[in-house]
Formats: sequence, C-alpha cells, structure tokens
Amino acid sequence: MTALISVSDKSGILEFARGLLECGYEILSTGGTLKHLQDNGINAIDVSAYTSSVEMFDGRVKTLHPKIHGGILHRRDNKEDVEVAKKFEIKDINLVCVNLYPFKETIQRTDDFDEIIENIDIGGPSMVRAAAKNFKDVMIVTDTLDYSLVLNAIKNNQNTLELRQKLMIKAYEHTASYDCMIANYMNERFNVGFGDKHFIYGNLVSPTRYGENPHQKGAYYEFGDFYSKRFETLKGEISFNNLTDINSAVKIASSFGKVPAVCIVKHGNPCGFAIKENLLTSYVEALKCDSVSAYGGVVAINGNIDKALAEEINKIFIEVLVAPSITDEALRVFESKKKIKIFVCGGEYLDFPKDSYDFKHIDGGFLLQNSDSVGENEVRDAKCMGNIEATCEQKRDLEIAYKVASLVKSNCVVYVKNSAMVAVGMGMTSRVDAAKSAINKAKDMGLDLKGCVLASEAFFPFKDSIEEAHKVGVSAIIEPGGSIRDNEVIECANELGISLYFTGVRHFLH
Amino acid sequence: MTALISVSDKSGILEFARGLLECGYEILSTGGTLKHLQDNGINAIDVSAYTSSVEMFDGRVKTLHPKIHGGILHRRDNKEDVEVAKKFEIKDINLVCVNLYPFKETIQRTDDFDEIIENIDIGGPSMVRAAAKNFKDVMIVTDTLDYSLVLNAIKNNQNTLELRQKLMIKAYEHTASYDCMIANYMNERFNVGFGDKHFIYGNLVSPTRYGENPHQKGAYYEFGDFYSKRFETLKGEISFNNLTDINSAVKIASSFGKVPAVCIVKHGNPCGFAIKENLLTSYVEALKCDSVSAYGGVVAINGNIDKALAEEINKIFIEVLVAPSITDEALRVFESKKKIKIFVCGGEYLDFPKDSYDFKHIDGGFLLQNSDSVGENEVRDAKCMGNIEATCEQKRDLEIAYKVASLVKSNCVVYVKNSAMVAVGMGMTSRVDAAKSAINKAKDMGLDLKGCVLASEAFFPFKDSIEEAHKVGVSAIIEPGGSIRDNEVIECANELGISLYFTGVRHFLH
Repeated sequence: MTALISVSDKSGILEFARGLLECGYEILSTGGTLKHLQDNGINAIDVSAYTSSVEMFDGRVKTLHPKIHGGILHRRDNKEDVEVAKKFEIKDINLVCVNLYPFKETIQRTDDFDEIIENIDIGGPSMVRAAAKNFKDVMIVTDTLDYSLVLNAIKNNQNTLELRQKLMIKAYEHTASYDCMIANYMNERFNVGFGDKHFIYGNLVSPTRYGENPHQKGAYYEFGDFYSKRFETLKGEISFNNLTDINSAVKIASSFGKVPAVCIVKHGNPCGFAIKENLLTSYVEALKCDSVSAYGGVVAINGNIDKALAEEINKIFIEVLVAPSITDEALRVFESKKKIKIFVCGGEYLDFPKDSYDFKHIDGGFLLQNSDSVGENEVRDAKCMGNIEATCEQKRDLEIAYKVASLVKSNCVVYVKNSAMVAVGMGMTSRVDAAKSAINKAKDMGLDLKGCVLASEAFFPFKDSIEEAHKVGVSAIIEPGGSIRDNEVIECANELGISLYFTGVRHFLH
Repeated sequence: MTALISVSDKSGILEFARGLLECGYEILSTGGTLKHLQDNGINAIDVSAYTSSVEMFDGRVKTLHPKIHGGILHRRDNKEDVEVAKKFEIKDINLVCVNLYPFKETIQRTDDFDEIIENIDIGGPSMVRAAAKNFKDVMIVTDTLDYSLVLNAIKNNQNTLELRQKLMIKAYEHTASYDCMIANYMNERFNVGFGDKHFIYGNLVSPTRYGENPHQKGAYYEFGDFYSKRFETLKGEISFNNLTDINSAVKIASSFGKVPAVCIVKHGNPCGFAIKENLLTSYVEALKCDSVSAYGGVVAINGNIDKALAEEINKIFIEVLVAPSITDEALRVFESKKKIKIFVCGGEYLDFPKDSYDFKHIDGGFLLQNSDSVGENEVRDAKCMGNIEATCEQKRDLEIAYKVASLVKSNCVVYVKNSAMVAVGMGMTSRVDAAKSAINKAKDMGLDLKGCVLASEAFFPFKDSIEEAHKVGVSAIIEPGGSIRDNEVIECANELGISLYFTGVRHFLH
C-alpha cells in the first residue's frame, strides 16, 4: 500500500504518517512535507526519486508526472490498466493526502500579486481531483480533521466504498471552493467584484428541521466561521425562519453602536424598537409599539441579558432571544419555558458579520449587489427643506427612524418618539397605505403619536402621507427626496409646521 | 512558439489551429483532438512523442507530465527556470487551448455513474489552471467563442498582458464552475442536495445600472441561458428591482397554466391579478384592485399583447410589461412612451425557469431550501371544515386566492371575487392588520367585497380575521389550518355562514 502525502497545512501530519506506516503503508512525499517527515524520523520516499524526475521551477512542477497520476488514476479492476502500470513500474497509490497552498491566507495577508499568484496551487488540486475520480480504489484525504477517522477506518478494516465516496465529495468541494475563491478574488481585484461568473459558496453549519415551510428541506451555510464558532445555542433549535428574522433583528439592534437597543422582529420586519437608558426600559418601550405582533417574535438585545430583563421578557411568549450574552440567573428564568430559544454571540454588543455583497434569488439565476447601509453622516448631513429646524431630540429620533426604515421592507414608514418606534408600516405596494396602516395600528395600541417623527426609506410621491402624518401630530420628517412632486411635499410640510429633511439617498429593501 | 490544444468540444478548432500555424505556432496535441487535426490535414505533434511517455489508461493520463506542465509553468523571466527548461528539453508552451470533458451534458443525459465519473476531466483542468497561473507568459483559451479574438490579438501584435489576464480570470471561472457542478451533483446524488458545502454560481447576463438603490452596484447572473437567450428586451433597460418584480409577477401570472392571466406587481407584491375570458378583460379587472399602486408597476401578461390590450395599458404609466410576445401594432402603441420597458420570452405563455432550490442571503452566509409551490391537488383536496360546501364558482376563486397568497409576502391575505383579486394585505407582522389594511384599501377603491373569497398562506391564529372577513361579506375561506385555536376559527366560520377549507400546507414567503 502506498500513500502520497503533500500538505501545506502540516498540523497532525506526523501522527497521521506514523499511523499509516504502522498500517503497512509506504509513504511518498515531496518538498516541504518530505523534509518535515524526515526531520521527524518518518521514513518517506522522495517523489523525485520515484519518478526519476527532479522537482523543477521552485516546486512549480513536482507531482505532475505519469508515475504519480498513473499510480492514482489507473483502474484496479481493469486488466490492461494493471498490466500497463506494472510495465511502467507505476505504484498503486491507495491514499492521497493533500491540502492546498494557502490562497485564502495569502490574500488576507498581502496585496502582492506575485506572491498571491505563487500561492495558487497547481499540483495539489490535480492530485486531489485525480484521487477523487478514482475513489473506487483510492482514499482522498483533504481535511486535517479527517486523519483519525481515516486511520481508524484503515485499522479496523472499515475502508469502505461508502467512506471513500464521502471523501471524494469532500475533495471536489475542496477544489471547487478553492477555485471559486480564486475566481472571485480576481474579479474583485480586476472587475470590481462583478465578473463574468460569480460564485456564492458556503460551508454547512447545520440542516434546519425544515425550510421556510414544513414541506421544504432547509439548511444554512456560512462564508466564514461566525455561526459555527461564535454563534451559540443555549436553548432550543434554530429554524430557517428564525435565521432570517435574527438577521433583520440584529441588523437593526446593532445599527446604533454601543447603546442599549432592543429590536423585536416578526416575519422579517420590526414590530418594536427602542434605545432607552437601559436594556430593560428599551425592551418595555419596544414592546409597546405592537405587543400583539411581538407574540412569538424574535428579540435582539444589544447587550447582556440580566435577571430583571429576563423576567420582563418572560411575561409573554417570545420565541427567540438573541444577545451577546446572558447571565446564568437570567437563563434560569427561562428554564421552565419549553418553547423559547436563546442564542448568544459573545462580546459586549451584537457583533454579526457584515457582508460586502448582497444577493437575491430569482428563478433562473440571482441578482448581486453591494450591500446597502446608511452612511455615517447621512442623517447628520440631511438638508432641512423648509424653515423649521428640528430640535436635538427630534434629530435623534429622526436618525433612529431613518436607520430603522432602511432595514424595513419597502414601502415602509417608521414613526419614532423619544427614541422608541411607536408605529411602523411595511412591505406594502403603496406608501400611503403603509402610513395609514401604521397609524391605525398605533390607535389600536392606544399609542399617542403626537410629537413623533416620521421616516421613509424612499421619497413620498405625494403630499398625502404628510397630511396623514400631520393629523396624528408628526413634528418632523426625514426622507430621501427625489420625487417630481418634492415641491408639493415641501410646501405641505412647511404649511403644516413640520420639519422636513432630505438625505438624498434611497434605501429600498425588498 | 508552441500551442497545446486538447479540446472536448471541437467546434471551431480547425480554423483556430490553422490560424495558429499561420502565425508560426507549432501545435502539440493529444487523443481525439490530435486525430481530428491530423484527419483535417493540420500538422500537429503528438504529446506522447514529445514527452516520450505513452498515453495511458484509456486517456486517463496523457498530459500530466513535467514536459507539459514545465513547458506551461516555467517562469520565462527567471534565468534558472529557463536553464532547467533547456536542460530537460522542455518547450515554451505559449498558448494552451483546452476545454473540458462534458460533465454537464453527461449528467443531463445519463444516470450511469461510471460514465459520469469517466467524464470528470483531470488532465484538462490541470493544464487550464497551470496556464492561468502563468498568464504573465501564457495564453489560456477555454472558450470556443474566444478563438477569433485570440487569433486577431496574435496577428495584430495585441497579445497583451491585459488580454492574458482576462483569459486567466475566465480560466479560473471555468475550472471553478466545473468543480462546483461536480460537487453539487455529488451532493444532489448522495446527500439530497444539502452537502457539506453548497455552490451557487452563475454567468453574468448583464450589469444593471445600479442595484436595489442608486448607490449600490448591481448585476444579474443566470444558471442556464434563459435570460441571455430567450428573454428579450424590446424597449428600455431592465433594472435590478425590475428583475425581482418580474420574478414575482411572472410566477403569479403563470401559476394557472394556459389561461389569460394578468398580474400587476409593485415592490415584489401583487396589487392586481385576474383571470377573465381574455387578456384585455383580465388586465382591466386586475387594475381595479389597486389602480393607484399599479402606477409605475410591473405587469405580467400570460399571452400575446395585441393592439387593443396595448391601448388599454397605455392609459396609465406602467413601467414594465412582460409577456410571451407582442404584436408589432401593439408595440407601436408604446412608441411615444419613453419610460415603459417591454420584455418578451417567446412561446404562447409565460414560461420562465423553475429552480428546484431557493436561497436567501443572511449576513455571514445563506439559507438553502427546496423551492415551494402549491401542490397540484392541494386546493382540490382541501378539507371542508364545516357544514357549508363551497360552490363551483367559490371553489375556483378559492384556488386563485390560495395560489396567489402562496406568492405574496407573509403575513398575507388575498380576497378574490369572480376570478379577480379585489383586495390584498401583505408583508405585515400581524395577519389581522393585513386583513384590515386590505379591507380599508378596498373601501378606498370603491370595491364591493360582498361574496368574495379569502385565502391566507398560513393559519389564522385567532377568529378576529374571520370576523373582519364576515363584515365585508366574505363567503368562503381557505387556509392551511394548524392553529391551536382552529376550533374557534371553525366555529366562528360556521356561525357566520362562511365555507371554510383547510389545505394542511403552509406557504410562508418572506
């Protein structure tokens, strides 16, 4: 039995190689791996000696040789193949252990293009792909974490076709993601990220019990390692819809930095949000906006959950709690509640990944775009369109309303008073309908909108929404502007004594 | 100058090879390509003759040889490399023209796993990747459509680094998508589509002027070739948001097969839908549901647009028209309207791709699920939950309402009367709010809901929505059922004389 070992990441390789030797394998190796093995007293044959072909061009050509690839690829159940292999003194290579030049680490470390190019592995992927193709007879090991699994299988006579098939799939996933990374990097570097092909790929974190609905299968994948490493389940099992809701809730709750913000989300949209002096008050105020919809909702807390907050939350049924942390005391509050799910991400504040790209599925393909966010000075630099300047308090509320509006599904309107959302209209085909619906809801909830501010994520096409706003006492409005009827809107706001600000930047979200 | 040619798809290869010979290249080739060239009188050197190594294992090992890969990979600006190359009689391979074994065509044609495995190319991707790595000195040609471009560049002394860099990116895109296809196929075959890694990748159809908003860059990519080949722009330029709206509108308008259905969409949700005796009447009825929101909307027409329909549509501002076809006469109706955009997809009915998988971006990763659709017999098999059977007319309307509801953002309610949507509530955090908002809107529009039917994509959690429905004269309701208060809901419907059907299948859409 022969194993070919050529690894860039050398962790665990000595134990693995020793194990293989114990199982009667002889080892072929090359370059740095060979040296590492030999330095550690592990007997290995130099690939160059075996192929009688020297390593060339600083290692650019080492294993691209018929005696290597023939050794991997020839069909053991094909008489002719076996004879040819014998004739040309080609060994049976039964196991290939390869991991690739660290392209990812290189592009993260440097911009030096020569160095980056040098870190594109050529021989490695060739061997991985060849060994995977011939998985009927060859084990292909690409993951350092699989070493003990593979050794045990060999030792216990469990080197089955099924196992080799699993390793084969893993191998093609490995080479696919390697080249995806290269292609996306090149397009990022030379085509501002929008190349002729685009690759979205991720590692399975976990299947979900089902997809958006029980008859759909579902799973979630991650680009980096946030969900598998930092995102921790303390209680319950995350669902497909939980993940999208958490995404919305966390984005909103973490939009304002190190402040005690709380956001309650249902069906991807917020039904409560507040930033008060502490998390407990924020939660209480957030809940007031729509305590009915909040039932079974997802609550994102931008800080540690303590006992008092937990007891407050425990008064109604909240399905999901997500926060940086929760005290043991607080966790115990929920002990008896079977249905609540609790997730933490560590740190002091909600710190989720922020992707540079966003994508949307349409049947037959997908749309790719740069991610949207409200610019740091966008609200501060918003232009006052009339003669009524907003007060400091109004400005703070305008900023909250506007940032939340940028994260509510279009068409939307967000009403904020004293740093708490008091009404929200969302996801509707008509902006004024969203405005009316929000106001009706606030009435149902017994909330007084008088003195609140209003934000819209896109321009008001008509003055009707301004008039509706005035009826309930809205004192200031922020919107992008850009309608052909902006003048009507401005005039209307001025007449009605409402401060009106234009940011010039639209934030549609669908 | 030496070119290495090894292609699976031989279209255009003779002209290309002849052109290269004319430019003074000598050609190295192998296997079927070599035979094809020689049969057509094109002088080419057999790779085996050059490497002094025979083609082995039915072609599994042909080009995996130091004289090939050294010829591609050695650095022309590195003295040592050049000396080594000379010493071992390694040619300068300056151009590599390779396309890969047809894995895609094979999996489309057969389930025979041996044949599929045999169609995983090993030597090809190795050469492509090696040549791409050394693009500073090597041209890598992977696309038959690039042959004339490349020949012209060579002839006109335009074989620039910039061109080679473009070809390099294309090459890594090529190998990346090849391995993505293999990995996804294996996971489809052995892991019901949800493997340890998942790859979503597409070909650029076109950049869009911007993304969801003007400050975001955007583009759309396709899996197959529907958008680039069948989807035709007759007028205007498609935008990012147009594409998502078209996706929604077409899904709804094509949900009922070969019927004259018309759907009007705004912000991803329908504000009008009808199936009447002809498209003109369908459009007129669809518009009535919310003629205000329809302004600037996307209209999907499930049939040919003729002059009469065009004239009707032309009465208000519609931003996008999408249909299988449009008559010349009808197209002329819109000639003077600058802003309208018209797209056709051919055939008699809207026939867009239907993907088996759906995915959603969350920051840090994505969610993958099987696509949702309403089962063929789902509505027919719905269970009558009370003692009041729906009439045939009601049943038809229930089916329409239910299928539309499955394609409206959750929470939603859809009211249908005489095969036309008369009210719709959508995308809200509360179902009863959606119901109320829809009813208020219908009142504003002067529509009489009396006798209409109501569908919900998920269960009604309380009887409140049923009571609201009764107030406006809803006669029949369809919903999945499944609430712990189903009994209340059933009792309420029975008391109020409303037919109530449960399908047992939820259709959340977010």
